[in-house]
Amino acid sequence: MEYSTIVIGDELLIGQVTDTNSGWIARHLSPLGWSARSVKVIADDAQEITRAIDEAMAQTSLVLMTGGLGPTKDDITKAVLCRYFGGEMVLNEEVKRNVDEMFKRRGIAMNHLTSLQAMVPSSCRVIQNEVGTAPIMWFERDGKVLVSMPGVPQETQAMMERAVIPQLVKHFHSDVDIEHRTLVVVDYAESALAERLDDFEKQLPEYIHLAYLPAHGVIRLRLTGAHKSKYVINADMERLTKQLHKILGKSIIADGDKPLAMIVGERLRELGMTVSTAESCTGGNIAHEITEIAGSSDYFMGSVVSYSNDVKHRVLGVDDTVLETCGAVSQPVVEQMACGVRNLTQTHCAVATSGVAGPGGGTPEKPVGTVWIAAQVGDVAVSKCHHFNGSREQIIERATTHALIHLLKLLQ
Amino acid sequence: MEYSTIVIGDELLIGQVTDTNSGWIARHLSPLGWSARSVKVIADDAQEITRAIDEAMAQTSLVLMTGGLGPTKDDITKAVLCRYFGGEMVLNEEVKRNVDEMFKRRGIAMNHLTSLQAMVPSSCRVIQNEVGTAPIMWFERDGKVLVSMPGVPQETQAMMERAVIPQLVKHFHSDVDIEHRTLVVVDYAESALAERLDDFEKQLPEYIHLAYLPAHGVIRLRLTGAHKSKYVINADMERLTKQLHKILGKSIIADGDKPLAMIVGERLRELGMTVSTAESCTGGNIAHEITEIAGSSDYFMGSVVSYSNDVKHRVLGVDDTVLETCGAVSQPVVEQMACGVRNLTQTHCAVATSGVAGPGGGTPEKPVGTVWIAAQVGDVAVSKCHHFNGSREQIIERATTHALIHLLKLLQ
Repeated sequence: MEYSTIVIGDELLIGQVTDTNSGWIARHLSPLGWSARSVKVIADDAQEITRAIDEAMAQTSLVLMTGGLGPTKDDITKAVLCRYFGGEMVLNEEVKRNVDEMFKRRGIAMNHLTSLQAMVPSSCRVIQNEVGTAPIMWFERDGKVLVSMPGVPQETQAMMERAVIPQLVKHFHSDVDIEHRTLVVVDYAESALAERLDDFEKQLPEYIHLAYLPAHGVIRLRLTGAHKSKYVINADMERLTKQLHKILGKSIIADGDKPLAMIVGERLRELGMTVSTAESCTGGNIAHEITEIAGSSDYFMGSVVSYSNDVKHRVLGVDDTVLETCGAVSQPVVEQMACGVRNLTQTHCAVATSGVAGPGGGTPEKPVGTVWIAAQVGDVAVSKCHHFNGSREQIIERATTHALIHLLKLLQ
Repeated sequence: MEYSTIVIGDELLIGQVTDTNSGWIARHLSPLGWSARSVKVIADDAQEITRAIDEAMAQTSLVLMTGGLGPTKDDITKAVLCRYFGGEMVLNEEVKRNVDEMFKRRGIAMNHLTSLQAMVPSSCRVIQNEVGTAPIMWFERDGKVLVSMPGVPQETQAMMERAVIPQLVKHFHSDVDIEHRTLVVVDYAESALAERLDDFEKQLPEYIHLAYLPAHGVIRLRLTGAHKSKYVINADMERLTKQLHKILGKSIIADGDKPLAMIVGERLRELGMTVSTAESCTGGNIAHEITEIAGSSDYFMGSVVSYSNDVKHRVLGVDDTVLETCGAVSQPVVEQMACGVRNLTQTHCAVATSGVAGPGGGTPEKPVGTVWIAAQVGDVAVSKCHHFNGSREQIIERATTHALIHLLKLLQ
């Protein structure tokens, strides 16, 4: 089935904000068998909104709208929807209570503009917004559905997951159950993985679909199934997941869709181990990714970003002569960095990087993109030289990903 | 004047890739007086592309298309364009030479699919792609212009700057010169800045426009002027920029549109100074932002991410008793962290953070979002307590921005 997305907001058209809602929606609806026909980004303008709704409702049986709500521009979108679906603007007591309470919690008085948020077209069914003030409105006409949601990504995403997606499933697929499983895979390029899984794919039940979602050095494999019997899906999913584990072995680093730093964190927690990082070319980005995970202070002790050779030597204890003879971007230096930060922070494990992020600093022997990575768990250290392509930012990003993969492999 | 953007690509509709081209285009065309009427994201599908072109050409005098080119899907978009604008597909020798050379440089043989890239509709004028293989195609009909460009952001952006924007200016504004100046401002919320600049705005020449572009704790002020005389614009811009400096004083931290970490880097370079960071709640993100700037190894020596109290004490030398009595999130601790990392890395300046990024760890006295920041230049140290809102990621981001601003203020 196809759906259309309409994204409303002047701030998007002038390029001040990037639309990430439509992508999020696509990634969450496609496993349910929905594919996006088009995404249209338009201004907070009645004529444009009307035209976009007309077109979308003509083309697809589901239309998802984000934005165009909120205290200052509320009226335009709601007036258009009221005209399109009929009825009149009425006060919704439940929305008013929700807005009142939200303001009370934040300790601010509700002003006139905000109280207008409780006015909705009588032709819609309201879904309460549990994380913001703008209500979500569900309209139906000729068997088609339009859902209008706020533009703030946290609100849209939270309420899509909690209410809109379950209600869409109930409305459009009342007779089927939809399940999906995600596995995170490393060691393979996408094409090589597809080749490896050729036989597996051929014997998949017809109602189950396998998707490859490559991103930042890892590939997420997603199995999606829609079937009348929840029992059949679950049994098949269990069996297929086991098969994938058998085929791919330790290349599967996680069951479930999680960021790499979270997978590393969970593994460390399981083992009761702590970690530290010593970073040269990644400049603190590994520590940053680890600490973006809530609760990481349980296993992450600290990091030394040793950009200068002096800091490598004095803080991390890297041998001066080795620095001079081998250069900073070398196996002995990166291994001594890992060992040094592990001793300094007294952690069980450590990971270290030293490389040429560019654009300057490359030599014929160590061109831009050359990065040495070392991981150490207890007394076991493994180091490897990588050659990454791309811009400075991309090289930093890739080195960070591979450093986390190195550590994870050593923890398996 | 209005333009439309059409973004083509299955990968965008399924949410695998986020469209950043349309925003980039908007930010670069709006200073020239162009405003986006709509952005439409569609699949690599002939019917959809035709419909989108029809609609866009009917509504606006300029249509910019990105994507739908490249070796595997080339034919669909080009066939649609050829049908729409007339003519036939012909081999463009210059494009063929460009593709040949690009492949030779990369040391790969050109395959059949890639050689197809040299085929273009005879109705277009080709703009050579200097950074990729897909040619840029310029079509005209009834005084309206459609430009088809590749989807890879680096290619679109490089070629827009080098060729497409100058040619658009020549085509649509042959008689005017367009200039813009950007100033980076701190210390003000957007509404307060607008109030402060009320009189300034009132006396602006009619042909000059002032835009406020707030992002991540700083506001970029952009003056844009379009005038027949380059001399008049330049004189006015000079005068107005000076006025702004007089009104806003040290709140203007840079002339020109640059990231904060680059402004800090340039200032350090001017002063011949070096810097280090000691990070608790920002977890290495300040070091990461500093080292994303090419050449930062000239002034950035290193960083200690001290997530645990033990690392704060043993590596940075923070007093044990102070840690116990005041807690890690406190003025004396953050000041000792800055001092400690400065001594350890032997730099002129240092910046330190200690706070509660959440979602856990908050207390009534130090709720989530409480962040102490200290900056030290020589023996002068300044510290301040902030209260940031938002998610864990946003608090880390905001603390990073304010840490850089603190340091910059101290360097003024």
